[in-house]
Amino acid sequence: MTVFDRMESEVQSYARSFPVTFERAEGSRIFDQKGDSYIDFLAGAGSLNYGHNHPELRDSLIHYITSNGITHGLDMHTTAKAAFLSALEENILKPRNMEYVVQFTGPTGTNAVEAALKVARRVKGRDTIIAFTNGFHGVTLGSLALTGNRHHRDAAGVTPTNAIHMPFDGYLGEGVDTTQYLDRMLSDSSSGVSIPAAVFVECIQGEGGLNVASAEWLRNLEKVCRKHDILLVVDDIQAGNGRSGDFFSFEESGIKPDMVTLSKSLSGYGLPLAVVLIKPELDIWKPGEHNGTFRGNNHAFVTAAAALNRFWKDDRFITEVREKGDYIADSLKKIAAGFPDDIIEVRGRGMMRGIVLRDGSMTASICKTAFDNGLIIETSGPNDEVIKLLCPLTIPREDLSAGLAILEDAVGTILNAQGMKLAAAE
Amino acid sequence: MTVFDRMESEVQSYARSFPVTFERAEGSRIFDQKGDSYIDFLAGAGSLNYGHNHPELRDSLIHYITSNGITHGLDMHTTAKAAFLSALEENILKPRNMEYVVQFTGPTGTNAVEAALKVARRVKGRDTIIAFTNGFHGVTLGSLALTGNRHHRDAAGVTPTNAIHMPFDGYLGEGVDTTQYLDRMLSDSSSGVSIPAAVFVECIQGEGGLNVASAEWLRNLEKVCRKHDILLVVDDIQAGNGRSGDFFSFEESGIKPDMVTLSKSLSGYGLPLAVVLIKPELDIWKPGEHNGTFRGNNHAFVTAAAALNRFWKDDRFITEVREKGDYIADSLKKIAAGFPDDIIEVRGRGMMRGIVLRDGSMTASICKTAFDNGLIIETSGPNDEVIKLLCPLTIPREDLSAGLAILEDAVGTILNAQGMKLAAAE
Amino acid sequence: MTVFDRMESEVQSYARSFPVTFERAEGSRIFDQKGDSYIDFLAGAGSLNYGHNHPELRDSLIHYITSNGITHGLDMHTTAKAAFLSALEENILKPRNMEYVVQFTGPTGTNAVEAALKVARRVKGRDTIIAFTNGFHGVTLGSLALTGNRHHRDAAGVTPTNAIHMPFDGYLGEGVDTTQYLDRMLSDSSSGVSIPAAVFVECIQGEGGLNVASAEWLRNLEKVCRKHDILLVVDDIQAGNGRSGDFFSFEESGIKPDMVTLSKSLSGYGLPLAVVLIKPELDIWKPGEHNGTFRGNNHAFVTAAAALNRFWKDDRFITEVREKGDYIADSLKKIAAGFPDDIIEVRGRGMMRGIVLRDGSMTASICKTAFDNGLIIETSGPNDEVIKLLCPLTIPREDLSAGLAILEDAVGTILNAQGMKLAAAE
Amino acid sequence: MTVFDRMESEVQSYARSFPVTFERAEGSRIFDQKGDSYIDFLAGAGSLNYGHNHPELRDSLIHYITSNGITHGLDMHTTAKAAFLSALEENILKPRNMEYVVQFTGPTGTNAVEAALKVARRVKGRDTIIAFTNGFHGVTLGSLALTGNRHHRDAAGVTPTNAIHMPFDGYLGEGVDTTQYLDRMLSDSSSGVSIPAAVFVECIQGEGGLNVASAEWLRNLEKVCRKHDILLVVDDIQAGNGRSGDFFSFEESGIKPDMVTLSKSLSGYGLPLAVVLIKPELDIWKPGEHNGTFRGNNHAFVTAAAALNRFWKDDRFITEVREKGDYIADSLKKIAAGFPDDIIEVRGRGMMRGIVLRDGSMTASICKTAFDNGLIIETSGPNDEVIKLLCPLTIPREDLSAGLAILEDAVGTILNAQGMKLAAAE
Repeated sequence: MTVFDRMESEVQSYARSFPVTFERAEGSRIFDQKGDSYIDFLAGAGSLNYGHNHPELRDSLIHYITSNGITHGLDMHTTAKAAFLSALEENILKPRNMEYVVQFTGPTGTNAVEAALKVARRVKGRDTIIAFTNGFHGVTLGSLALTGNRHHRDAAGVTPTNAIHMPFDGYLGEGVDTTQYLDRMLSDSSSGVSIPAAVFVECIQGEGGLNVASAEWLRNLEKVCRKHDILLVVDDIQAGNGRSGDFFSFEESGIKPDMVTLSKSLSGYGLPLAVVLIKPELDIWKPGEHNGTFRGNNHAFVTAAAALNRFWKDDRFITEVREKGDYIADSLKKIAAGFPDDIIEVRGRGMMRGIVLRDGSMTASICKTAFDNGLIIETSGPNDEVIKLLCPLTIPREDLSAGLAILEDAVGTILNAQGMKLAAAE
Repeated sequence: MTVFDRMESEVQSYARSFPVTFERAEGSRIFDQKGDSYIDFLAGAGSLNYGHNHPELRDSLIHYITSNGITHGLDMHTTAKAAFLSALEENILKPRNMEYVVQFTGPTGTNAVEAALKVARRVKGRDTIIAFTNGFHGVTLGSLALTGNRHHRDAAGVTPTNAIHMPFDGYLGEGVDTTQYLDRMLSDSSSGVSIPAAVFVECIQGEGGLNVASAEWLRNLEKVCRKHDILLVVDDIQAGNGRSGDFFSFEESGIKPDMVTLSKSLSGYGLPLAVVLIKPELDIWKPGEHNGTFRGNNHAFVTAAAALNRFWKDDRFITEVREKGDYIADSLKKIAAGFPDDIIEVRGRGMMRGIVLRDGSMTASICKTAFDNGLIIETSGPNDEVIKLLCPLTIPREDLSAGLAILEDAVGTILNAQGMKLAAAE
Repeated sequence: MTVFDRMESEVQSYARSFPVTFERAEGSRIFDQKGDSYIDFLAGAGSLNYGHNHPELRDSLIHYITSNGITHGLDMHTTAKAAFLSALEENILKPRNMEYVVQFTGPTGTNAVEAALKVARRVKGRDTIIAFTNGFHGVTLGSLALTGNRHHRDAAGVTPTNAIHMPFDGYLGEGVDTTQYLDRMLSDSSSGVSIPAAVFVECIQGEGGLNVASAEWLRNLEKVCRKHDILLVVDDIQAGNGRSGDFFSFEESGIKPDMVTLSKSLSGYGLPLAVVLIKPELDIWKPGEHNGTFRGNNHAFVTAAAALNRFWKDDRFITEVREKGDYIADSLKKIAAGFPDDIIEVRGRGMMRGIVLRDGSMTASICKTAFDNGLIIETSGPNDEVIKLLCPLTIPREDLSAGLAILEDAVGTILNAQGMKLAAAE
Repeated sequence: MTVFDRMESEVQSYARSFPVTFERAEGSRIFDQKGDSYIDFLAGAGSLNYGHNHPELRDSLIHYITSNGITHGLDMHTTAKAAFLSALEENILKPRNMEYVVQFTGPTGTNAVEAALKVARRVKGRDTIIAFTNGFHGVTLGSLALTGNRHHRDAAGVTPTNAIHMPFDGYLGEGVDTTQYLDRMLSDSSSGVSIPAAVFVECIQGEGGLNVASAEWLRNLEKVCRKHDILLVVDDIQAGNGRSGDFFSFEESGIKPDMVTLSKSLSGYGLPLAVVLIKPELDIWKPGEHNGTFRGNNHAFVTAAAALNRFWKDDRFITEVREKGDYIADSLKKIAAGFPDDIIEVRGRGMMRGIVLRDGSMTASICKTAFDNGLIIETSGPNDEVIKLLCPLTIPREDLSAGLAILEDAVGTILNAQGMKLAAAE
């Protein structure tokens, strides 16, 4: 009986899909205790955009630790925080003409969402928040109200309140602009939908199944928000930090969110960090109103600053990301073409891509087979029907090709076996 | 205009009290950019029980990082997590005959509280939670309902629901056992108080003003919980990890909580980490129901294991903590004795001590004066009337004495000045 | 200054539209203090289906009062209640093969809705209720969550919780079956919509603007409810008691609701009375769990029994209602035909009909003009764009024609004047 | 099988205690179908302060009905409503120097409470309401949050929110002024108790067990409300209309509530009627924001006006009430004196009195025995430990004495039998 069997709660999830004990990792490779190597197409569920233990980031961190840099700083000013803020300002905000202040929240995405909820509700003096079908925004009680998934919602033991879910882009089928439905519900004084404080949206829904909001839909959503005097908040926790093919997932659309939540890959190294970007005029906080012990995780500031300076000074990195994204899309289309009855769609944007199976019960076997062959990859979507690729953005071409080959092989093995079973049954 | 002025939200709090930029820290000393040194009686609000950048913990961490140990592991099994679980089992749980499973939540105290709330509500099938006056349990929406402070509660923009506050030990005056009131409200089927799923209690209320629950009160509270079939949850986020004079703050009383939340000093190094200890029979989680990107912060596992192995193999460390606690208490009593009209009480337990001023408006000036003289120390309590000492448990006697001397001096300076002002006004 | 000006709250509404003091009433005529007579196309907002002070009902009531029959009986058994229950059983339920038990709630529609909500939530163990856009179910806090109108919702001072509004039949345009959207949201485990305890629906939305659910839509709604194990509750408070052309508004569709709420015209005489019809297997009440002082309004039982025995022993009455309904529809179509640009629709079913104006700001003037000419009629719909006819079902043809003529005249006066104004402006 | 067995919901309560079918009633006597007569010490749970079918009120009502007076008037002005408002103004408000406007709500007490809740929350812009242990304010969702009884609270299927229960006068024992605890919780910014919009209080708790708030406690409560800028609302639904020995139960104390709810005996005849008295400056209603079909129950206006004019023109009636109240108290004390071990207290004020048994399981048998002997009387209190007398205020001395004799006899029968059983068991 391992210490995990004896001591860890049943709440474990990834540990069940990848039942080995991992020891070390480099770039897009992760190694278990026995020395076996896996290509990592999961990348910390989007937290390792620059791969595992990127050497430059690692060196900055070791240097900082060795010089006894502040580790834990509550929300005090530190040189590490200053460096992070400057790197964010110089490399990200200024070049994009964005003016935001930064709130450091407890270092989890859900904490940033909780803070943004408070700002929105107080600025507008309203309780209700609009979220979208298949959205995921965290599982603490405030955020959970915005999260669509019943598996998570029902786990609360109480019914989360004050959020309403509207259909995401594409939810009502091709050609239906679901922002019109939202506008209708808000314009109708008798619809039962209260005017909300804010709309929270992911431009690409990661957990929800790689649903991509079109640029036009986002612009229409922004118009509806402005029309009804509602704040627009982009939750860019999973799709941000370059994953979408831009630093922010909403850049392509040109919308100007009132707040943006960032976490996951923000530290660049997988260290806990979360922030809310807030338009300066909405920064209504009084000192300490939203606090938290670890809102000053200085190790994460160090690696985050290093990552922003390393990857975002010019377009080279993001151009590469887009090219790899196209390559992944092409490869997935080829895989899909081989199983037109089983794989119904290739979905995603940037390096957030996946294939959608008609039958969600197939994906677990495919991922298991892939794992047996040295690839870590996970499913998403309401019925686990999507195999989701979140490779490190820095993955070398060889690893990317090798991983895709393992995936193709696993897809073939499982779907062909299934086909033979069905044929035999006839 | 500094980058903080340009870029950081108004929500900052400690940065206002200690308006310098910190750069590095060692043990009980922290240094600003200009090289000035401060004795740290705040210790990350209780997150740095072993001081800043403890060399043994630091070495473990550097070694781990250098060998490319897993940094971000979602909730996958890693060798670092195994080492942490074993260290917890061997050094803490087994010697105390405690049987709990460990849930790794998002690495903030509030996230652990949110998880414990879910377990309690689902196990009992009830919505209501009992918390106590002056309690602090975090500011995400679920936890916030348990937190007493209106500054934090009102910041939510919505009214937190499903929690009821009962008077903490001593709240109704000397000699009144407030668990009797609780029992009365629960026994009376018409009291308006629903039978709760659980009672959440801090044995020593840190933010609430260093209110100490007596061992007898805790035992009575446990009896009330058992009588009414209610879970008992100890939030040991601030008072745990040795701060109280025991590893757990409830050890002295002998109660057996159904769940315990731990965070802050658990990693030993100020790194974000939070867990819920759950009695095995209450571990009703299904896979992934409560998730979060950073629930596997392996750097924190490394330092946490090192800390548990370093300080908790025998009684030496905790014995020292108790001695220092007594020394602090004695020193504070001496300070208090000099100002019998102004300082109305010396409060606390273990190395969580403080002095209570009659007039809460004095404390800010005292702390400011102390800071000017090289001591970092903060206030707590509903009216900021408590000056709270949370020195590193590892603080050397010299620093402790030096810090106390600065404090005594600051107290004298401010209270005497105030006395002269009052005298002049007569 | 009248006693009303001195003493009555600003909450008054109808008193503003019809600013006279009424004294007596007979059938479809109501008389003010000065003796002026008005034809009543409002009929107590649907509470006077059998007209004012119907002589047979009045005689029963006077006889009962004169013989000192029980007036107030809490929920005790009385001969008057027995007579009512028998009349309901014999004339209504048995002939329709309906098996329900009757819960007497506080004598207001909203109280019946509150009771039905409790039954639904407890039977299913779920919090959420589905209601529909433009629905009206009352303004006490439980019912208010189901009511769509923001004028009423915002008046609560708190945000009503635990209800979700789905698009009513026709809300998404011709040809869109909105039950498919509901089914999609319920079938998708990640939609953000919790599986509800029940769906509450009005087959004809009175306050919401005379929106009529088609029989097919209701049958589809029932299917969705059965598929997802959700209770189906018809709120027949306004459309019930013959108003729709059947006793129950859902009869036409053949659906079998799990509960039905009735009030308004149930007493037949305008006396307060409300009941919930509950399928016997759902009658989970324990004694007195939902109580209320006036749940035994015996005067109302007397007139209700008299009404049920007088009008519902055979088809004669309801056949007449249908004929009058057709006549009203035809008359309204003629009126509408004269103003094709201004009147965009004739809407309704049975004797619940109205005309929809393109411009909701016109209706108040039309109703005012009608009132000046001796007709009482009101508006409904989210923007007051609907002029709603709720004549007594017993209205004589002469009064009906006379009233329609006044309406036609008022429509002409106002719309022509408006047309001239617009022409002049060009 | 009676029609009640076939057709009425299990929610019935009084019908179980008094299992006969009643037919007619006069004054303090009620008769069943077989002609058996019962003295009525229940009086419609306080709705029949002037007895059943008082002849003068009855004659007014018959006259009104015979002349085709308006029965159902929505909220339109009618001569009957004018007469009621004038009678209230002249006989009640003016002589007491009270200035209130009158809101007619749906004709149930709970509906008046719901309306007052809305006013309070909107005037103050706060969600929370303070209610008291053992209070009863109705069972619709808003009011239910204020009601203490778990039997009713748990029946909702959801947890009512936004109300907090504080200890009523006497709840913490003799000599403890519980308003000090309330003040403490409100003054402490970290108590967990939000500053409420209003305090809702019954001066005498009827359902809660005849707990009487002292005049001093009420004055202290008013002071706490004023200190913290909180509205004070007296729910006088059961104790109002003369029951307490004054028209309003709070008169004795001299407090000036911001709002008062009245219902039950207001119509004087047992007809449904409910109002909120609102200080003019708090009448923030916009037209129709709180509506309801039966808020203009004109029959009730007629009898209410008759009752106010008949009983409240001078002090004669209320003087008699006080005398009878004293007589009842004396009689109960005599009964109690005979069973000092079993009857622990005589409680109440005015004609709202009762005896408290040590053992709540005895009261049902006593009431049953009394019923068998011709007396209708009920229990109250959290454990049904109180036998509550709510005789008509108009009860003739003979009936009062006869009823008390039956009660005494029943008490003796049951307690002696119990004593013998216990003796035999020893």
